[in-house]
Amino acid sequence: MTRPTPASHPNADVRMRGFTARSTVDEALAWVDAAAVRLSSESVQLPQASGRVLAEPIASRVDVPRFARAMMDGFAVQATDTHGASPYNRLTLTEIGHCLPGRRFSEHLSSGQAVRIMTGAPVPAGADAVLPAELVTSNGHTVSVHGEVAPGKHVGQPGEDVTAGQTVLPAGRRLRPQDLGLLASIGESQVNVVTRPSVAIVVTGDELVPAGTSAGDCQVVDANGPMLAALAVRDGAVQALPTLVPDDPEAILAALQAPADVILVSGGSSVGQEDHVPRLLDQHGELAIHGVAMRPSSPVGMGRLQARLVFLLPGNPVSCLCAYDFFAGRALRQLGGLPAGWPYPTIQARLRRKLVSQIGRLDYARVQLVDGQVEPVAVSGASILSSTTQAEGFVVIPQDSEGYAEQTEVKVYLYDIYPTTSEA
Amino acid sequence: MTRPTPASHPNADVRMRGFTARSTVDEALAWVDAAAVRLSSESVQLPQASGRVLAEPIASRVDVPRFARAMMDGFAVQATDTHGASPYNRLTLTEIGHCLPGRRFSEHLSSGQAVRIMTGAPVPAGADAVLPAELVTSNGHTVSVHGEVAPGKHVGQPGEDVTAGQTVLPAGRRLRPQDLGLLASIGESQVNVVTRPSVAIVVTGDELVPAGTSAGDCQVVDANGPMLAALAVRDGAVQALPTLVPDDPEAILAALQAPADVILVSGGSSVGQEDHVPRLLDQHGELAIHGVAMRPSSPVGMGRLQARLVFLLPGNPVSCLCAYDFFAGRALRQLGGLPAGWPYPTIQARLRRKLVSQIGRLDYARVQLVDGQVEPVAVSGASILSSTTQAEGFVVIPQDSEGYAEQTEVKVYLYDIYPTTSEA
Repeated sequence: MTRPTPASHPNADVRMRGFTARSTVDEALAWVDAAAVRLSSESVQLPQASGRVLAEPIASRVDVPRFARAMMDGFAVQATDTHGASPYNRLTLTEIGHCLPGRRFSEHLSSGQAVRIMTGAPVPAGADAVLPAELVTSNGHTVSVHGEVAPGKHVGQPGEDVTAGQTVLPAGRRLRPQDLGLLASIGESQVNVVTRPSVAIVVTGDELVPAGTSAGDCQVVDANGPMLAALAVRDGAVQALPTLVPDDPEAILAALQAPADVILVSGGSSVGQEDHVPRLLDQHGELAIHGVAMRPSSPVGMGRLQARLVFLLPGNPVSCLCAYDFFAGRALRQLGGLPAGWPYPTIQARLRRKLVSQIGRLDYARVQLVDGQVEPVAVSGASILSSTTQAEGFVVIPQDSEGYAEQTEVKVYLYDIYPTTSEA
Repeated sequence: MTRPTPASHPNADVRMRGFTARSTVDEALAWVDAAAVRLSSESVQLPQASGRVLAEPIASRVDVPRFARAMMDGFAVQATDTHGASPYNRLTLTEIGHCLPGRRFSEHLSSGQAVRIMTGAPVPAGADAVLPAELVTSNGHTVSVHGEVAPGKHVGQPGEDVTAGQTVLPAGRRLRPQDLGLLASIGESQVNVVTRPSVAIVVTGDELVPAGTSAGDCQVVDANGPMLAALAVRDGAVQALPTLVPDDPEAILAALQAPADVILVSGGSSVGQEDHVPRLLDQHGELAIHGVAMRPSSPVGMGRLQARLVFLLPGNPVSCLCAYDFFAGRALRQLGGLPAGWPYPTIQARLRRKLVSQIGRLDYARVQLVDGQVEPVAVSGASILSSTTQAEGFVVIPQDSEGYAEQTEVKVYLYDIYPTTSEA
């Protein structure tokens, strides 16, 4: 067993550099925003396009609808033929047929004639209005009109929804359910969307066993891997399973070279003896940021290895979550064309207790909501993952603040990202 | 071609009942809430559990962590051995070994001894604190201590995150990324979650061709099918592809009998000659609600066919979206154990123009946001799907309101839900 003194340790340079010069959160965010350039595009079929981000604007090649169509059940007529009709002045038209959806009526409608028509059917040539069924009595041969209709009434005009050449959706649009409907209606079968970033999740730590197994003596089940996998999918990445890697430089370097747009490394991110990852990234790529003035997550790092963006996330699970959320998630979202900002909904609420911080570092404080007020969670250690499952969300205390007094109104970011709102 | 008069038409009973007695939105919502009973549960593997809803509370069978572990790199010691140590009063301890993560240190630490220890390693028996590396100088055989440490300091205690027997997550919880981490850390490999509802999407209309194809003369591409498919997935349903069915009672009845928890029928929901669906549901199941005092979507219907919940959604796409959102989506969410309310985030903003409605019906008004103010979209016909893609969201005007004056502050439901729930 080697027991090197700090001075002779191969990592001594890293240790000595240590975190004496931490970056600010803003500096790290600026690096992320410069590094995370939107990926190129790929074509997907419409049923797979929900939630994807359009790579280019979509213009329609067709009018929607393509033809004048009935918007009600009734009778296609010339509107002027109904002029003056009322229950006391019934007018008679000759019924010449029946217009059904999906079929072109073969005859031209002349003045004095009516055609029974169903909603969605093409209005026959010569007709300019649909007289609703309730304004007509029909014996199948003649119709007795007891109400007026104006020209164009109850007729859907060609192009009234979309006209040929019109840009219907802009580049960057995250496709909503109704957007898929609209794309279908203009005849699109697939769309060009921004490619989803691929991630590799590399979990280091000789004490760890994979999620889904039980920990033996001295072992800990990996919690960060499944958490990061779910976070990355939330932020638009292709699903990936975590890989556990021993605390061994060669194994870690091999894992960092996985074919992915983004490498998320959990653990070994600090300046200790076995914190290989920063040194490896520095030697084989670029360690752009290492150590950020925030709590938790100060040992976070980030950089590049060839085309990959690499995020060094602390092994403590709260630090891992926080570091992911501040930096890695933001990168994934921007790579995938999504808005950079957090997906968390926010509320404003008052503090039940003061929330202290230190000037010079940003604080991420997990909070609960009690009677509509904000209660910091009691147990706040960076290793206590349950503090993030008991919390409803978090409050960010900026670097230049000493914290907030009781009853201050603060912004709470809610972990439950599917907002639910009450109906009217 | 038969051209029956209204009086002799087989649908005459439906037509005559018509919508003379529309239900209120509240009555229809009450029916949905009574009918949509949470489904039973199924077991899923942890990596597939993100966003799923726990069917039962989860209690831990183990302590997390299971053992006392170092929270820093340094030296495991007896804290009392450091009492009085300072740079001016260095104390010497004998270094007896090295504790690595994942391995039990074999010896018992006695007073006067120190063991080099790495973050995450089990604290050896006899030690009660970890002295941070920066308070120690080591030559590999003896350590010179120049700082004090209190008992328990930098030691993670067994069960400090989770204790055996503790309920860690409640039933009904929609699992968040950190929840998956916690579940992994307590040794769970799978969880019981509420079964996702299955849907069948039945699109009627002889003029329709499937999404992904182009419309011929007199034809219209189905927009409601892809829209409903995406909406249903958003609300927790298993993905389904729409089925186009001709306007033929036998074909429609067969489609209504698809093996699914919920049948979404688009088109043919009203009281016209070819509106077969309400009559079929009335004859073969239960047509509980038909016609609701709202605009758009007044021809919406709902009921049951054996165990299925059936929603009759108008064919006009805006009506279809609105009717889905008010009733069918709410049913799907509740079947799947999700909160009943809308997933749309809301903002409060002032109206740039008045928004008129009629007392006696609820109005669903699509709006845009212009300079932070609410602008109703100009084109508001129920057939104009692009009005819902140009809109940023909608405002609901309740049944008892005539609308809102310019500059009234209103609640806007935003269509853009972040993040999207598209599957990997």
